[in-house]
Amino acid sequence: MVRWEPGAAGRLREAAMELYVERGFEQTTVAEIAQRAGVTARTFFRHFADKREVLFAGSEDLAGALMRAIVEAPAGAGPMAVVAAALDVGGGLLGQDRERSRHRQLIIRANPELQERELIKLARLGDRLAEGLRARGIAPREAVLAAEAGILVLRVAFESWVSGTDQGDLRVIMAETLAALRTVTA
Amino acid sequence: MVRWEPGAAGRLREAAMELYVERGFEQTTVAEIAQRAGVTARTFFRHFADKREVLFAGSEDLAGALMRAIVEAPAGAGPMAVVAAALDVGGGLLGQDRERSRHRQLIIRANPELQERELIKLARLGDRLAEGLRARGIAPREAVLAAEAGILVLRVAFESWVSGTDQGDLRVIMAETLAALRTVTA
Repeated sequence: MVRWEPGAAGRLREAAMELYVERGFEQTTVAEIAQRAGVTARTFFRHFADKREVLFAGSEDLAGALMRAIVEAPAGAGPMAVVAAALDVGGGLLGQDRERSRHRQLIIRANPELQERELIKLARLGDRLAEGLRARGIAPREAVLAAEAGILVLRVAFESWVSGTDQGDLRVIMAETLAALRTVTA
Repeated sequence: MVRWEPGAAGRLREAAMELYVERGFEQTTVAEIAQRAGVTARTFFRHFADKREVLFAGSEDLAGALMRAIVEAPAGAGPMAVVAAALDVGGGLLGQDRERSRHRQLIIRANPELQERELIKLARLGDRLAEGLRARGIAPREAVLAAEAGILVLRVAFESWVSGTDQGDLRVIMAETLAALRTVTA
């Protein structure tokens, strides 16, 4: 019988972030994360595939929220208007805890394997957004370009927010970055 | 004493591509590549760090050519005009052998580790292009957005050329894809 552990996933995430910051990602073991969270290693593996995945646990929520925003955008909205609506939702979701995001970013930047995992996640997210745009009847090439332009804005805006270049509301930074992309490419 | 082997790098690249297509990337060893190219494994490692790098040997040439195009673009050219000049050079360089590029793409797509390496290479290339644009006096955010928009156009154009959606001149496809990005974001 599997015992239900209230809040175990959240405690594991907290414990992992603390240890990755204190000792470095490579030097931390799953056993240590589980111990600090007060659960067994077995419980860890019920929630996460490996110690990398702890850092990417929110990416499925983000993808789901962006996809819903794409489906729910007003009928007849052009591809970039749909993407802007999705970015607004993404900014609200990602922009909640700058300190935590900054720690996560520092951990990822220190480890090439984690950088690769982040790039793969973003590439897959771009594919899904393009698929969502195509499902709205947008032509394939326009769907890919709009989706990837959205990922680009998300990355650049998030980077400037998390690095402290601009500490304002991430939703506002997303909108400004999109406007800047429009100006640059005009 | 290190014996000079004329054309060893080229023969190793050919042999590796053949074996990756015939047996799959994972099932091919460095010893087999060297044997087919008629050299020793030691010669392989004088030219390539590992069997992944054989597939990415051209990326330094590409980066160098794009950086030169950025430096040589007319004074006063806006960020996207500079990027367009670089893409034109990139299209000329990448667009030489579609069959070979298609084989390479199939090998990479079949292997997540190779996909990651490709994404990392493209991310680094984007960083370098942005650096080149900043060196021309373009503001940091505009430099990043223009450079990343360039990488996006390069990726989408290359993908449509290599997959056969559009088998024309890659330079023309690059220019058309850039125009499409401008229309989508307008």
